[in-house]
Amino acid sequence: MAIATPHPPTPQDIVLPALEGVTAREDLNDVSQKLAEIRVWLMEDLRGMEQALQGASQGSDLAERSAAHLLASPGKRIRPLCVMLASRIGESVNTLVVRDLAVACELVHTATLLHDDVIDEGTERRGRTTARMVYGNTASVLGGDHLLVEALKRVHNAGKPELMSSMLEVISSMVRAEAIQLAHRGDFVPDKERYFSVVNGKTASLFHWAMDAGALISGASHQQRHALAEAGRLLGVAFQLIDDTLDLAGDANVIGKDLCVDLREGKLTWPLIVACEREPELQEAIASIVRDPNSEGLSFLAQRIIATGCIEATRRKARDVATEAGEHLNTIPPSPVRDALSAVVNSAISRAK
Amino acid sequence: MAIATPHPPTPQDIVLPALEGVTAREDLNDVSQKLAEIRVWLMEDLRGMEQALQGASQGSDLAERSAAHLLASPGKRIRPLCVMLASRIGESVNTLVVRDLAVACELVHTATLLHDDVIDEGTERRGRTTARMVYGNTASVLGGDHLLVEALKRVHNAGKPELMSSMLEVISSMVRAEAIQLAHRGDFVPDKERYFSVVNGKTASLFHWAMDAGALISGASHQQRHALAEAGRLLGVAFQLIDDTLDLAGDANVIGKDLCVDLREGKLTWPLIVACEREPELQEAIASIVRDPNSEGLSFLAQRIIATGCIEATRRKARDVATEAGEHLNTIPPSPVRDALSAVVNSAISRAK
Repeated sequence: MAIATPHPPTPQDIVLPALEGVTAREDLNDVSQKLAEIRVWLMEDLRGMEQALQGASQGSDLAERSAAHLLASPGKRIRPLCVMLASRIGESVNTLVVRDLAVACELVHTATLLHDDVIDEGTERRGRTTARMVYGNTASVLGGDHLLVEALKRVHNAGKPELMSSMLEVISSMVRAEAIQLAHRGDFVPDKERYFSVVNGKTASLFHWAMDAGALISGASHQQRHALAEAGRLLGVAFQLIDDTLDLAGDANVIGKDLCVDLREGKLTWPLIVACEREPELQEAIASIVRDPNSEGLSFLAQRIIATGCIEATRRKARDVATEAGEHLNTIPPSPVRDALSAVVNSAISRAK
Repeated sequence: MAIATPHPPTPQDIVLPALEGVTAREDLNDVSQKLAEIRVWLMEDLRGMEQALQGASQGSDLAERSAAHLLASPGKRIRPLCVMLASRIGESVNTLVVRDLAVACELVHTATLLHDDVIDEGTERRGRTTARMVYGNTASVLGGDHLLVEALKRVHNAGKPELMSSMLEVISSMVRAEAIQLAHRGDFVPDKERYFSVVNGKTASLFHWAMDAGALISGASHQQRHALAEAGRLLGVAFQLIDDTLDLAGDANVIGKDLCVDLREGKLTWPLIVACEREPELQEAIASIVRDPNSEGLSFLAQRIIATGCIEATRRKARDVATEAGEHLNTIPPSPVRDALSAVVNSAISRAK
């Protein structure tokens, strides 16, 4: 088998422009401007991180090629950015250790995407065919395993045992959240408590770790570390809420994957919870499309759901959560890093991809 | 969903009797007797290990139940036994740390079985329906992930960073070996070099780790640690060679899974390599049954393969490898532990399951 791996993108191509691009609307020029500044500021770190990231899966076997396939796709790299920014809060910056932790964070994220695409039978991701479609499900699972181990090696090498413990807890919580989702697959019930346990486990825990790890490694005070970690956790929740809106009301060409995938699977998202609260009969309509999906019914149902105003409500909720994240950030002294982190939080809720 | 997890077996039921039983033949009474002695000697440790092992997956979610399903099946527990015995070589025995490492080793092994059964579409394991048949493929993959993380938590808690590094390398090598097997699936070529890279990666590396970890934690000398680790690696190879013979010439009722599964998939095993060396036209016959499996052709082909004498040749090779393992053991001073390890090595090549 000889499938060419595309030329890996340069950091300039992918890291911050992905966030800048989505915020380059008139009302968001400030955020966009700020992100451009961060990009210049962190240029060297970002370049090094991206190279190290691509270097994590260079082998020729099917597991590594399958992982490399996804790593080479342009991602937002928001988690490593959190590690790198948080690492500038304290006194000490060991660039190589920070880079390792930033890469580890993105590798864990990428590993879960490889496994998720197998679980959800995804065909497109980041505008490209998924690794499992190119290399098969098994290679994709093994590719995820490979990246997970590569991530843990980097965390281990950082020489901070507590970061290893917390990363293992993060992965546990991701597996648990995935298992909860799986148990409720095809059985749509708008359960807020379950929604938040899944979001915390699958998304927020890794954002929390990213900020916590960056702060710890920089020798930040306990109080600052806690503030950043909490901001990270809330950023993760806000990020996921926006993700939920994009499945229903995004632009497939921009987000690089099909729309209404979550809806078709009855995956619990915040807009669906809101829509069912506002129009209780939608619960049965959603359950029914999950049992018997068809594209006409799906797009009609999506329109009914959107008509409840659930997208705006979800965006509002994301803004509230982001504001709360900002409050945590505001407990630390003003600095360019704090501004940059605020800009990242704002970009996450303003994004269209 | 409410599937009862069977009552977990007690250590007396499963650990050493599994090895003793398979060696309780007239010519192996010595080995059997020795194993019975080890059992009495290690009774408390074995009981604690088994309890801790079952405790690693007690949650109610699908990942943990799927993992618990396999953990509750009687296994030989030969890897934790290696850790426990090797830990008695040096001066210090911290029972709890040893137990954690022994459990970690079995958890990694169990995790790979859960993933293997998904990859190979296995329906039976240890005489029971596989977890993937009960809980589904996804739950089985997540169950494996769960056990892997639980294993790593225990290794991390042992507080010996070099054991964490080596365990991560072991898992890497397992993933790589699995990827090599996958790449050659359905394409049968009797390649000895590839055979040994897969065996080293998938089996021998974890046995090596088991002995190395036990020795390290007991404060054994560098030389003793190396001897035990090498003996472990060779024990793993011998163990796999016997496994290979059981697929063709075992008793399905005794080994608790179907026969000729490896053959049907064209999986590279030592008896097949020997058989093709002795009768080159078998290569095409095997390739052809892999392309178009049917049970009549399969059992006829198995008879042709066995008729080459490849089973005896493989047993001989396993004995040679075990002898080499014994030579490494003999570089350490005589002791009851050394005798016990020799008995384990001998039992591994005499087993019928």
